[in-house]
Amino acid sequence: MAATTHIRVRYKDTDTMSVVYYGNYLTYFEVGRVEYLRQAGLPMAQVNQRIHMPVVEALVRYVKPARLDDLLAVISRVSECRRASFTFSYEIRDEASELIATGHTRHACWDPPTQRMIAIPDWLKKIMPDADLDPAPTRP
Amino acid sequence: MAATTHIRVRYKDTDTMSVVYYGNYLTYFEVGRVEYLRQAGLPMAQVNQRIHMPVVEALVRYVKPARLDDLLAVISRVSECRRASFTFSYEIRDEASELIATGHTRHACWDPPTQRMIAIPDWLKKIMPDADLDPAPTRP
Amino acid sequence: MAATTHIRVRYKDTDTMSVVYYGNYLTYFEVGRVEYLRQAGLPMAQVNQRIHMPVVEALVRYVKPARLDDLLAVISRVSECRRASFTFSYEIRDEASELIATGHTRHACWDPPTQRMIAIPDWLKKIMPDADLDPAPTRP
Amino acid sequence: MAATTHIRVRYKDTDTMSVVYYGNYLTYFEVGRVEYLRQAGLPMAQVNQRIHMPVVEALVRYVKPARLDDLLAVISRVSECRRASFTFSYEIRDEASELIATGHTRHACWDPPTQRMIAIPDWLKKIMPDADLDPAPTRP
Repeated sequence: MAATTHIRVRYKDTDTMSVVYYGNYLTYFEVGRVEYLRQAGLPMAQVNQRIHMPVVEALVRYVKPARLDDLLAVISRVSECRRASFTFSYEIRDEASELIATGHTRHACWDPPTQRMIAIPDWLKKIMPDADLDPAPTRP
Repeated sequence: MAATTHIRVRYKDTDTMSVVYYGNYLTYFEVGRVEYLRQAGLPMAQVNQRIHMPVVEALVRYVKPARLDDLLAVISRVSECRRASFTFSYEIRDEASELIATGHTRHACWDPPTQRMIAIPDWLKKIMPDADLDPAPTRP
Repeated sequence: MAATTHIRVRYKDTDTMSVVYYGNYLTYFEVGRVEYLRQAGLPMAQVNQRIHMPVVEALVRYVKPARLDDLLAVISRVSECRRASFTFSYEIRDEASELIATGHTRHACWDPPTQRMIAIPDWLKKIMPDADLDPAPTRP
Repeated sequence: MAATTHIRVRYKDTDTMSVVYYGNYLTYFEVGRVEYLRQAGLPMAQVNQRIHMPVVEALVRYVKPARLDDLLAVISRVSECRRASFTFSYEIRDEASELIATGHTRHACWDPPTQRMIAIPDWLKKIMPDADLDPAPTRP
C-alpha cells in the first residue's frame, strides 16, 4: 500500500533562490506520513494518545527543484519494519510526474506511560503489510 | 526599558520574492519578546511553568523589505499594561538603522492550574515599569 | 465573492504549547489569498509576472487555539479597494464552524519593470467587485 | 577547520511534542554552514553572486530531543571534497555538550551565467583544506 497526498507549494515554503527550501521537504514527508496513517484508519490525534513515533533518521535526495504554486504528489509507504523501528519511504513528483525528491524517515516507538522505547506494537504492525516492504529500499 | 536583540536573516526566512516572508516578522517579534523577558530576569522556561501568555492580537506594519544575511535589530518593549492584558511593541531596524517593520502583540494571562484567564500577576507587572509605557502606542 | 480553502494543521505548524504557532496564521492567510486569486482566474505564477502585491500591514486576532490535525476553513475576501492599495479580510473556522481567528492583510501594487508603486491596475480591480467590500471592515 | 555557531531554540522551532520539529535541524545546519563560510571570508551574499551550491542530499540522525530556549552549538565542517561536489558534516550539542543530532549535506556547484553544473572552483576549494576532511565521514 502506498498513500498519495497532494501539496501546493506556498510562498512560505520557498526561499530567495526561488525554489522550495531544502528543509521543507521533511514537512512534505510529514504530511505524506500522516495521510498514510489516516488512510490506514489511524488519525494522528489517536496515534499520539497510544504511542509516539520519534524520527531517528531522515534522508532527502534532491532531484529537481520545486517552485511556487507547483502541485506536488507525495507518495508514502512503509519500506521496512524491524522489531523496534520502521521506515517510511517517500517520492515527491510534480504534475508532469517528474521526480522532485526521494527520501526516508526511520522511526522508533516510544511508550508515553512508561516513558521508554518499546517494540512496535501489533496494532501498528498490522498496517505495515509485507507487500509494502521494498526489496531495494532507498535507505543507503 | 527596551531590549534589543540581533537576528541574522536565514535562507529559511526568505521567500521567492527574495525578501523575508511576511509571516516571519512574528517570529522575530517572538525572539525579541523572549529576550526582553530574559533580560528582565524571566527565562521563558521559568515563565511557562507559572503562567501562559497567549497572543490575542498581532499587528505588523512593513516599511522596507529585509533580505538574506541582513543583520536585524529587534527593539522590544512593553507599551501598555492593563488589568488583564499587556502589549509588547516592536521596531525592527537594519544595520544602517533604517526601519524595516513595526508592530505589536497583545497578550492575555492564562493560569495553567485553573485553566482560566487571570489578571496580570504582580511578579509580571513588576517588570513592566511605567517608563515603558508609550503615550502614543503603535496600536491603532 | 468569498473563497473558502481548507487547511489541515501540520506538526510543523504547532508549537510546544500544543497549539498552532501564532505566526503561522499569516501563512494560512497567504494560502487563502492565493486560492481566492486562483478562483478569480489569476494563478499566482501569472500574477507575479505582471505585478507584485507586497503586504504593507497584517493583523491577526486570535479567538480560539487550533491544534494538530484540525481541518480549518480559511474564508478570504477583498474588503476594501482604494486607488493604490487593497485589503483582504480573513476568517478561520474549525470543523464545528467555530471561529479560530480573524484578520486582514493590506497590499500595495508594485510594478516590476519600472520598480515603482503604482495604482491598482484595472485587470486586478475587476476581480474585486463592490459586492465584496465590507461596510464594517475588520481593519481597526 | 570547524566553525561553531550558537542557536537559541525558538517557539517557532518546536512542535506539539514539546521538542524541536525534526525538519528544523536542516535550518540549523544551514545556519552553521553559512557561518562556516562567513568565517572563511565568504559572506553568503557574495557567494550567491558567483555560484550557487544546491543541496543534493541531506541526512539527519536524531540522538536526543532539544527543547524551547535550549542554547545549541552547531559545529560545521567540510568532510569531503570531490571534483563536482562537497559535503558539510554537522554536530549539534546542547549546553551540557551532549549530542543532540548529527548529519551532513552534500552540495553541487551551479554556475548562474551558464545555468549549468560545474566543477568546484578553486576559490571555493581553497577554504576546504585537507585537514578538514574526515577519514570516517558520517555519510553512510
